[in-house]
Amino acid sequence: MSELHKVVIVGGGFGGLYAAKAFGKVPVDVTVIDRHNYHLFQPLLYQVATGSLSPGEIASPIRHVLHKQKNTRVMLGEVTSIDAAAHEVILHNNDRVPYDTLIVAAGATHHYFGHPEWAKFAPGLKTVDDATEMRGKILLAFEEAEIESDAAKRQAWLTFVVVGGGPTGVELAGALGEIANDTLRHDFRRINPRDTRIFLIEGADRILPPFPPDLSKHAEKSLVALNVQVRDSARVTSIDENGVVVTSNGADGKPKSDTIASKTILWAAGVQASPLGKALQDSAGANIDKSGRVIVNPDLSIEGHPEILVIGDLANFSHQGGKPLPGVAQVAMQMGAYSAKLVRARLKGRTIDAFHYFDKGNLATIGRAAAVAEIGKVHLWGWVAWLIWLFIHIAYLIGFDNRLVVMLEWAYNYLTYNRGARLITQHLPETGA
Amino acid sequence: MSELHKVVIVGGGFGGLYAAKAFGKVPVDVTVIDRHNYHLFQPLLYQVATGSLSPGEIASPIRHVLHKQKNTRVMLGEVTSIDAAAHEVILHNNDRVPYDTLIVAAGATHHYFGHPEWAKFAPGLKTVDDATEMRGKILLAFEEAEIESDAAKRQAWLTFVVVGGGPTGVELAGALGEIANDTLRHDFRRINPRDTRIFLIEGADRILPPFPPDLSKHAEKSLVALNVQVRDSARVTSIDENGVVVTSNGADGKPKSDTIASKTILWAAGVQASPLGKALQDSAGANIDKSGRVIVNPDLSIEGHPEILVIGDLANFSHQGGKPLPGVAQVAMQMGAYSAKLVRARLKGRTIDAFHYFDKGNLATIGRAAAVAEIGKVHLWGWVAWLIWLFIHIAYLIGFDNRLVVMLEWAYNYLTYNRGARLITQHLPETGA
Repeated sequence: MSELHKVVIVGGGFGGLYAAKAFGKVPVDVTVIDRHNYHLFQPLLYQVATGSLSPGEIASPIRHVLHKQKNTRVMLGEVTSIDAAAHEVILHNNDRVPYDTLIVAAGATHHYFGHPEWAKFAPGLKTVDDATEMRGKILLAFEEAEIESDAAKRQAWLTFVVVGGGPTGVELAGALGEIANDTLRHDFRRINPRDTRIFLIEGADRILPPFPPDLSKHAEKSLVALNVQVRDSARVTSIDENGVVVTSNGADGKPKSDTIASKTILWAAGVQASPLGKALQDSAGANIDKSGRVIVNPDLSIEGHPEILVIGDLANFSHQGGKPLPGVAQVAMQMGAYSAKLVRARLKGRTIDAFHYFDKGNLATIGRAAAVAEIGKVHLWGWVAWLIWLFIHIAYLIGFDNRLVVMLEWAYNYLTYNRGARLITQHLPETGA
Repeated sequence: MSELHKVVIVGGGFGGLYAAKAFGKVPVDVTVIDRHNYHLFQPLLYQVATGSLSPGEIASPIRHVLHKQKNTRVMLGEVTSIDAAAHEVILHNNDRVPYDTLIVAAGATHHYFGHPEWAKFAPGLKTVDDATEMRGKILLAFEEAEIESDAAKRQAWLTFVVVGGGPTGVELAGALGEIANDTLRHDFRRINPRDTRIFLIEGADRILPPFPPDLSKHAEKSLVALNVQVRDSARVTSIDENGVVVTSNGADGKPKSDTIASKTILWAAGVQASPLGKALQDSAGANIDKSGRVIVNPDLSIEGHPEILVIGDLANFSHQGGKPLPGVAQVAMQMGAYSAKLVRARLKGRTIDAFHYFDKGNLATIGRAAAVAEIGKVHLWGWVAWLIWLFIHIAYLIGFDNRLVVMLEWAYNYLTYNRGARLITQHLPETGA
């Protein structure tokens, strides 16, 4: 096997995994490196953060997903830098892994717009640990409200602020609305979970900016029905342990700020590319954009290094429609498949066309039986869109590992308004205040 | 409700939860205080530690389990001391909760026989966090072995030592055997998981000492079939990051020690009562034994304080057969129900008989389709015992919350040799060594 062309894939997300799968029967020697041992079905991560699903239900060991591919090795490790001259990646323990082709699919992380100090008050949602932390924070807020005797402090515990009105923010706000209205309705004695206030803050003039305006409107209606207060054209200008300051233009056109007292602030706004973008700049002279994404050629390679391909959220691919492709699972999966096809063609001395993204549509869900869908020119909303959302997510989930159990769990939770995975696994704070 | 008799229950394990449930329709004001928000079905915790089940599948929010009982309040909090004179318990945030009857069901934790420094090398298994930590440690060992080039170090990563041959130790060792023999068989490229060595160390002259000797023998046979090496009459005399030292008497009667090089040591030996036993000694003059358990009267109350009852693993009840009742779920559940009955009788000015434990039998499982069962005078083993084990555990699990999904997950895992919840959720160590 050592004579074979060595493909190293960094990252086991949608891009890396679909690339690895596409190499299944190709006579190359594949190594997948990830710092987690699992592939995460990220579109459902908000369901872990809000107690509907357990982490094990949306994550599968990468090793297991690929165990039938005899040409593929999986390594648990963090790639800290790249030696493009030596054709090697360097791991956290200084081990070096040589490659003939390198596919970098290291993804993105959340980004606090130059305010890293906000991170500790407003956790984001990228990993299983993020999700269980967020879940603990949400559930703990209701517990603290229950034992708090001061009315103002209690209201702060019952106030939730979601920053960012993209799909993740909308999904989180919708799930919070359901928790307050349905799931916890009978669980407390002193507080009424329906006294919960949920704010969704979006900088653009409407939520779900990538969707057409009519679907943004439908999504907003569904959120309002769940008691979510949507604030668009509003920027968060400060976050601390007592809440957020939100700034927007008043009727007179002048900026006005108000403070929302809240103990639970959830971050669903900016993302920033993996630091491996910078590593590729340092080592291989790659061009990166202001978000740290690597600007790729039409075939996903970087300038001067045809043997290095960058895919998924880390790639800035602007050869189709002028602006970069969005950082979504669909794009990553198609890039993953393309990169394998490209390597295969090169080994046979052939060329293939440039990468072309085929947009299958956009979906976002807003809690129980409500969603919006844009499929070509068709716009759908309400339960029709929700059924499509459900069907597509279950189909993909079953595809990468057998997850029929998740479907049954959903059906059961849907019928009973239950959220079975409502565990606080962190330690209690030292004082209850 | 403030006029009602106030019952405070400390701990939401089997004892506390069954006490609370038994108060369901009694005209008293019940408060359940636990430092976790969930009740844990502890007999299946080893399945979380070995990747078969997710934490959410064996834990339910206490609040949710009791949400239909209008007379019951649940508080998330840690009781740090008891003021028996004032009839109040004191929480982590210095809040005080008054009681007329106090039921202490605070359980036990693991205990390292005077070697607290062993804790960081040999984690025990009491909470969800313990289980996910143990799961990460086990899975990480195989990952480290896969990237380790030194043969001796690799063997140390592939060597697992379980300390303690009681039911938990036997269950852990059996599950490790299955992981190595079946689950991971095809997942690695460099190592063969079958090179794994698993040691089970027990101080008594046979494993499962509470069971009759013939069943210990059957259990040992089942373990040997899974490649587990059982060492009885052996004491662990040292534990560090490189392994354990095991001491036993040689053929000449003199103690002999040998070292087992291992990176993964799991603790299933001693337990020690909750520090609330000591708190009851300080505040109410309770008598405690050398394990910290509270010596209780025949009606589960403590000397001089009929209003304080101690139940479950924290209680030393020696009025039946002379020696203390074992720290198992059955005993705790029956004590919980008895304590509610006692309070009810007292409120009506009546008396009831002393507590009497009815032993329904003992069960322990050893991996796939093997178990041992002692039911009255009947001894069972193999798949018959395993079916009984499965049936009883599923019945109880469904009883405290609807957990049909768990049954389906088990069926699926059984048929496919799969372990779906194989996630490492901790961070990577800084170096791979």
